[in-house]
Amino acid sequence: MHETWHGGNVDILISGALVISPGEERPLVLPKGDIAVVGSETVYVGPSPAPQEFRSAAKVIEGSGLIALPGLVNAHTHAAMTVFRGFADDMPLMEWLTQKIWPAEARLEADDVYWGTMLACVEMIRAGVTTFADMYFFMDETAKAVERTGIRASLSRGLIGSAPGADKALAEGRELCERWNGACGGRITTMLGPHAPYTCPKDFLEKVMEVASELGVGMHIHLSETEGEVKECRKLHGGMSPVELMDSYGLFEFPVLAAHCVHVSERDIEILSAKGVGVAHNPGCNMKIASGIAPVPKMLKAGVRVGLGTDGAASNNNLDLLEEARIAAFLHKLASNDPTVLAAPEALYLATLGSARALRLEAQVGTLERGKKADIILMDSTGPHMHPHHDMISHIVYSARSSDVRTVIIDGKVVMEDGALTVVDEKEVLARAEERAQALVRR
Amino acid sequence: MHETWHGGNVDILISGALVISPGEERPLVLPKGDIAVVGSETVYVGPSPAPQEFRSAAKVIEGSGLIALPGLVNAHTHAAMTVFRGFADDMPLMEWLTQKIWPAEARLEADDVYWGTMLACVEMIRAGVTTFADMYFFMDETAKAVERTGIRASLSRGLIGSAPGADKALAEGRELCERWNGACGGRITTMLGPHAPYTCPKDFLEKVMEVASELGVGMHIHLSETEGEVKECRKLHGGMSPVELMDSYGLFEFPVLAAHCVHVSERDIEILSAKGVGVAHNPGCNMKIASGIAPVPKMLKAGVRVGLGTDGAASNNNLDLLEEARIAAFLHKLASNDPTVLAAPEALYLATLGSARALRLEAQVGTLERGKKADIILMDSTGPHMHPHHDMISHIVYSARSSDVRTVIIDGKVVMEDGALTVVDEKEVLARAEERAQALVRR
Repeated sequence: MHETWHGGNVDILISGALVISPGEERPLVLPKGDIAVVGSETVYVGPSPAPQEFRSAAKVIEGSGLIALPGLVNAHTHAAMTVFRGFADDMPLMEWLTQKIWPAEARLEADDVYWGTMLACVEMIRAGVTTFADMYFFMDETAKAVERTGIRASLSRGLIGSAPGADKALAEGRELCERWNGACGGRITTMLGPHAPYTCPKDFLEKVMEVASELGVGMHIHLSETEGEVKECRKLHGGMSPVELMDSYGLFEFPVLAAHCVHVSERDIEILSAKGVGVAHNPGCNMKIASGIAPVPKMLKAGVRVGLGTDGAASNNNLDLLEEARIAAFLHKLASNDPTVLAAPEALYLATLGSARALRLEAQVGTLERGKKADIILMDSTGPHMHPHHDMISHIVYSARSSDVRTVIIDGKVVMEDGALTVVDEKEVLARAEERAQALVRR
Repeated sequence: MHETWHGGNVDILISGALVISPGEERPLVLPKGDIAVVGSETVYVGPSPAPQEFRSAAKVIEGSGLIALPGLVNAHTHAAMTVFRGFADDMPLMEWLTQKIWPAEARLEADDVYWGTMLACVEMIRAGVTTFADMYFFMDETAKAVERTGIRASLSRGLIGSAPGADKALAEGRELCERWNGACGGRITTMLGPHAPYTCPKDFLEKVMEVASELGVGMHIHLSETEGEVKECRKLHGGMSPVELMDSYGLFEFPVLAAHCVHVSERDIEILSAKGVGVAHNPGCNMKIASGIAPVPKMLKAGVRVGLGTDGAASNNNLDLLEEARIAAFLHKLASNDPTVLAAPEALYLATLGSARALRLEAQVGTLERGKKADIILMDSTGPHMHPHHDMISHIVYSARSSDVRTVIIDGKVVMEDGALTVVDEKEVLARAEERAQALVRR
């Protein structure tokens, strides 16, 4: 997947930061650590000072007062939906969808998706999110925004198999994969995006799997988000849950990223674990639209690849993954009636390596590690809410704000430096997104 | 309570901000509003430009791109406990208390409380909190920190009636009231702080009420936080809940601020409503230590004076009231299985006027209104997560971060201006608090 680096000059050296990186078992913590980057790759993570060979760097970032973390991975969103942020809130789900979101989505144009995604990318970079998994339409625009902003993404064209134009959508999904899978030096990967079991009948899913097989890509799907959807599925499909149904179709023979998995049974969890299905847990969205509580501690215990997502800004309403980590910890302590559940290191794992595993990108991202892509964020540890320094992992999960993220490196490029975006004109992005969004809701 | 202003020069004019102020029924929203301040008082809130008489101001703050809100009111905290932030997390409640917090608290010195509270005040000011209700010990130190930082507070000395030294503590509680009630031009008010029904037997509470009656002050108490505490109370007191028990003692004949009220019955809610008891809801803390879900929508419907608190930083772990408003909205939508519950304007109400009413300070603070104290915060509305501008109340509650607060005015004084504290040396506060906290846990 990546070449090993054998010497030569270093591009970036982060010097003397508190380095924290999650692990399957326990996090790596270096009170004073160095990180060296060559090209898009991390070549050294270890105690400071780094060995001599890593010290002559084109760019040195002084790390004192900063926490170095792997970039956060947003395992499920619809980036362009930032155009709908605050457009409709506090409504019953079906009213919200049928009266507000769907009619507005029907009026969406390519430029709305481009500028909405640009806005989302800027917001995510600011919040320390360096990778996101997206499902939407006009995905060429999404890919262009990803290309331009320097963020990493796994993109899929959403497919409603039961709607008119399903085959056209699938053709677009295929084109997206053919054009963009592996693009931007591998920063962009793609999946197919069958929307959900209740919108994609068996014959359509079979076509999707055929294309997936041909292209060698995985799938991004919504799964068991609401109770009603699970009940309906069991009624229509001889008692089978959506997870069982998808398994019976053979979907899980492919790499699958399943968003939500709120209403899953013990049997469902066994299947998700056995088949290596990635689960994107979206606690903020699940709470805000009252979908329920995903059994995350049980899924983790069963070895399911669980990660964290924000979902789209129409329903959550920001793309702040750090906030999701905190909400996840709070929610599952409450739901389990046990304050020891989802301890801080585990919540941090979910937002980084957990999500990377859910996206099957763990060989590239999710930890600070030699040989992985240089997706690194530097967080200010000097704010009042970060004192005293008893336990910085606790502070990151329970007290920090995403605005504490000061510098963001993605694929070896500094895309934000000390709070200033380096790659795009942020003011232009905000103005254009605002303009498109206002026109859209009035269209 | 306050004199009306009859002309003369204005001290501060905020010009052309988006003005949002909660109300009992619906919020006031002025897309372009002015606010004028004379001394400690707000003398004009209305469309921009303000009438001529308010326009010649000693200080003009250009409001474009800013949202003016009433300062947030943190209805329950133990400010000095910032020294324990991150000291012990993710532990069972009793283990956390008996093995970590209580032994460390027994080693607390006056200077720990002073610098811990200074840290808390700096953190709260940065987060737009302009008033807080506190219960702790060494409260003279807390009052000094409040005096110095310019924040507004309602202070009470915590009283454990069942512990040795209860009478001495009560004497200190009385002294606090005598020395500080109404101090700093009314910025400081005081209450007595009987810790909880299970730590304060009847005879002690009678002494407390006697002192409260004599001094004309109210009481701040923890009430029905855990299920175990309510069960135990019913067992010991002929089936009475803590709320019923306190009512039977006559406690609610005084103004009472009751923290938590998680496990309250329909009958309890009736009592809380009828007696005008203020309830400080602490959703983050209740989730993190798995205490349960307070029936906030029911209490609001019954007319209970509900506000929002962060609780102490040992258990939550920051003093970010905006975060609490979001968590409250999320939690009660989920718990009610209804996304329309606690809509954004109501969550904002809880963090401002609701809390002010819980503290019985609604005549002074909680809204932007002529005649009230000038406790005003200005929030940046230009960040990516605040776009597009479909609905700014939604953005404040569902997307903003407390770091968006740029300028804070308390009692007519600018205590933070465009992100810089003006009243204290923030670096010194952080350094001294860090020093005290590190020494304390090693003592």
